[in-house]
Amino acid sequence: MPPVPHLMTLADLTGPQISRVINHAHHLKQVSLPWLDPQYSKSYGKRARLRMPSQSLFNKSIALLFSKRSTRTRLAAETASLLLGGRALFLGQDDIQLGVNESARDTAMVIGGMCQGIFARVGDHSEIEELAKYSPVPVLNALSSLWHPTQILADLLTLHEHAHLFDADAKQPPVDSHYRTAPLAKLRPLTVAYVGDSANVLHDMLVTYPRLGHSLRVATPPQAAYQAPEPVWERVKQLGCDKKIWWGTDPREAVHGADVVVTDTWISMGQELEKEQRLKDFQGYQVTEALCKEGGANPDWKFLHCLPRKQHEVDDDVFYGERSLVFPEAENRKWTIMAAFDLLFGKWDMTSTTAPVLPKKSKKD
Amino acid sequence: MPPVPHLMTLADLTGPQISRVINHAHHLKQVSLPWLDPQYSKSYGKRARLRMPSQSLFNKSIALLFSKRSTRTRLAAETASLLLGGRALFLGQDDIQLGVNESARDTAMVIGGMCQGIFARVGDHSEIEELAKYSPVPVLNALSSLWHPTQILADLLTLHEHAHLFDADAKQPPVDSHYRTAPLAKLRPLTVAYVGDSANVLHDMLVTYPRLGHSLRVATPPQAAYQAPEPVWERVKQLGCDKKIWWGTDPREAVHGADVVVTDTWISMGQELEKEQRLKDFQGYQVTEALCKEGGANPDWKFLHCLPRKQHEVDDDVFYGERSLVFPEAENRKWTIMAAFDLLFGKWDMTSTTAPVLPKKSKKD
Amino acid sequence: MPPVPHLMTLADLTGPQISRVINHAHHLKQVSLPWLDPQYSKSYGKRARLRMPSQSLFNKSIALLFSKRSTRTRLAAETASLLLGGRALFLGQDDIQLGVNESARDTAMVIGGMCQGIFARVGDHSEIEELAKYSPVPVLNALSSLWHPTQILADLLTLHEHAHLFDADAKQPPVDSHYRTAPLAKLRPLTVAYVGDSANVLHDMLVTYPRLGHSLRVATPPQAAYQAPEPVWERVKQLGCDKKIWWGTDPREAVHGADVVVTDTWISMGQELEKEQRLKDFQGYQVTEALCKEGGANPDWKFLHCLPRKQHEVDDDVFYGERSLVFPEAENRKWTIMAAFDLLFGKWDMTSTTAPVLPKKSKKD
Repeated sequence: MPPVPHLMTLADLTGPQISRVINHAHHLKQVSLPWLDPQYSKSYGKRARLRMPSQSLFNKSIALLFSKRSTRTRLAAETASLLLGGRALFLGQDDIQLGVNESARDTAMVIGGMCQGIFARVGDHSEIEELAKYSPVPVLNALSSLWHPTQILADLLTLHEHAHLFDADAKQPPVDSHYRTAPLAKLRPLTVAYVGDSANVLHDMLVTYPRLGHSLRVATPPQAAYQAPEPVWERVKQLGCDKKIWWGTDPREAVHGADVVVTDTWISMGQELEKEQRLKDFQGYQVTEALCKEGGANPDWKFLHCLPRKQHEVDDDVFYGERSLVFPEAENRKWTIMAAFDLLFGKWDMTSTTAPVLPKKSKKD
Repeated sequence: MPPVPHLMTLADLTGPQISRVINHAHHLKQVSLPWLDPQYSKSYGKRARLRMPSQSLFNKSIALLFSKRSTRTRLAAETASLLLGGRALFLGQDDIQLGVNESARDTAMVIGGMCQGIFARVGDHSEIEELAKYSPVPVLNALSSLWHPTQILADLLTLHEHAHLFDADAKQPPVDSHYRTAPLAKLRPLTVAYVGDSANVLHDMLVTYPRLGHSLRVATPPQAAYQAPEPVWERVKQLGCDKKIWWGTDPREAVHGADVVVTDTWISMGQELEKEQRLKDFQGYQVTEALCKEGGANPDWKFLHCLPRKQHEVDDDVFYGERSLVFPEAENRKWTIMAAFDLLFGKWDMTSTTAPVLPKKSKKD
Repeated sequence: MPPVPHLMTLADLTGPQISRVINHAHHLKQVSLPWLDPQYSKSYGKRARLRMPSQSLFNKSIALLFSKRSTRTRLAAETASLLLGGRALFLGQDDIQLGVNESARDTAMVIGGMCQGIFARVGDHSEIEELAKYSPVPVLNALSSLWHPTQILADLLTLHEHAHLFDADAKQPPVDSHYRTAPLAKLRPLTVAYVGDSANVLHDMLVTYPRLGHSLRVATPPQAAYQAPEPVWERVKQLGCDKKIWWGTDPREAVHGADVVVTDTWISMGQELEKEQRLKDFQGYQVTEALCKEGGANPDWKFLHCLPRKQHEVDDDVFYGERSLVFPEAENRKWTIMAAFDLLFGKWDMTSTTAPVLPKKSKKD
């Protein structure tokens, strides 16, 4: 038995490992989508020929340990588990209170004795580290004070799927006979701008995009509260990502040359008391056509947001307009979480760089 | 791809379409029940021959978006989804707050990108209309301020199953070779009395019973608060249902000639503050043997109630007595919701009038 | 159809019936564990040969009616149901309030019309008796003010699995060709000490251990609040268990000669106001190496606790040390609950003493 694998941040993986997860998500999505079509009369009977997605979670249960509410992450995890043949068990903060009724250590031991994976959304990052330290089964970070790895996986899948928007020549590579589904198009090196608070979404961008060949331009308000914390910077530098990161305080400068503009909430759960101050500090940070024009973004810039969205962060024209990829991005939470669950919880194989082992063709295929 | 179908009220369907749903529920019930038997030693092995119910939700997830608590509707939806091969995901008001954290529009887009159907129990009816407007997957009304279509489906199935109580000659029609389960008995034209508040249960009765050949007699207190709202009356008149509706304020008059007496809660969730006033206004509305005798109901009258029940609405003699069909009615929530899920979410085919396509016989059958 | 079976306490079963449940749990565990392994590349393909556990809950739903929070019991029930092919539906106290919105009678009738079993964790024991009185499907006690049968099943399985720790000669009996999994080792007669409050865990020990050949030594503080209630004593005497029970107030005396030391929380849910008084009353009751040495326990004594644990009940040395069987004990909640669900909800056959009917070998085996 190898040591139990965990995933706390994409900094834990290499570039090729990350690419493999994205490609696997794309594969799972293509295999799964036909199952989700309505069962029209005429197509009836063809379903028997559909290929099943990986069933690596068959008979298995994944604990969703969420000390914060989450619609997207939870739904993605529950629906992805179903497609993998398993079950996600949601434990909200009314069901379990980490460290209150019993220690995180005991909870990790108990849950790990009953479930085959823990997908945890905690407050302070140290809580998930504590779970991973004692859990006999893999722990995947669903969101912590520091990191948000599954969000960046979804963002990357979305960008790859829309590669043709950034590069007219982007072509689908030839079909891989192993997967027998069209692989993902290549993405040209992009300039990605982040305008907002330095929080978990940005942190995982910082350790990921540069290693995949993309440049990052970040603007946060000048106050200390909006800068990346030391443990994040350490990983960024360790991985040599800092060379491809520009960081300032002017959102217009940040979006200069941007192919993609990203923002996130200004007021995270638990920061409601600072609301007034924060709204003041983020004045001028709303993503709009005007801001991006003034700043000199690529005229074809696209928009990403992890949702839920408040209007002060981005106006309706951008959010509901042609540039917005936010709803495909939200759906891709499902497919990337499915890939992570399959590889981490189902196969304990998050760190290969070759395609995951697939079921053999059945005779009927 | 046809437009996304939704169901807000039974007024959206024709009489024959409604009858088809009821018949389909009856079929699903007969196919499913043997699976639910305890697995006795002696019967073991015979199960392999059992026919599976429709698996149109296989691999699919249905979001239960409930801003109000509900035992019956929730359990019916969860157990029915399981039998259809899929999963219901319950999202209560602690999990998701429609319109609070994000707009109903965004929520519909996000959930519709991950799930294959939305079964929504909202406050104001406009909320579910908003969901349906933007959802890429079918939305089914699980209860709103105006309508409660799935309750009336359950009531109708229950009445059909007990057709012999109203008509000694009611016979099962010959077995349909397609379904190979006994179809439902025909129901003679009934007089149905409703005694209580004008709320969603009554509203869906108003647009449904008259079109299926039944007469309605309604008594509500005279105050404006207890009358059907304008949007409901519009649908009632549009469908020509008003001709078969008598509406007054005296419960004794309402039950005159009644074959079935129906009531519902006097104090809906959110009306707790008006409790005292409402109890006063509904004096004399309790359903009892005495009331129905005095009013001149059919001596064989039966009783329906959507539950949960308070004693002031109906006394124990009636509620737990021979006349009461309330527990079969509650169980039928499951089978009618199963039919609605199969047709709407699984097959996108709520509006045909022919029997749904069934799986072919397997060779073993 | 036989009368609906229920299980309120292990006092409802005979010794041989209890042993059968434990042996069945052991069997289900051995059959299920390989399914829970990570799906490594190399083992891939071998899974097709794995034997499935009993699928007696296929297509069935079990209602978890929990008026108190519970991580262990809930996770055990949900994961066990999955392995049995069915689904557990968790209904917490925000979802359903027994006796508040509607009577326990109505709730039992409604849930029993939709689900195939009720696993209920209530406050006062009379509540679960009321459910069982009216439910058309089996009711299993998940915890009540008086009894906690599934905990003692898990404790017994754990002790049997560790039989070699108590008896160097303990050997696995020869393989039973019917089960084709190694049966449980026999357990020599043990002295089991319980040090703490007289609550549901102890009560089910009192009616069970003596009948399986073990002696009990109990210490509780002298106050009336910490003595077993009359209905429990009645069952204890009825079953002749009192002959093998020593009961005092000195924890050192209780652990004399003990092979196993058990404790439980001193402050149950709902007793938070009495915390200060209780901590005072239980002074000297903390389980430690020193206490057991002083009292003259078997030098190889082992420790059990149903969790969650507070440090005042047992110190870290014991709790996380070599003597502690608490984490295997927690995991065994899953396998014993799986056995109880299979026998009670799936097969309605809790009271046989022969091995449960197993699926025939498939041709491939």
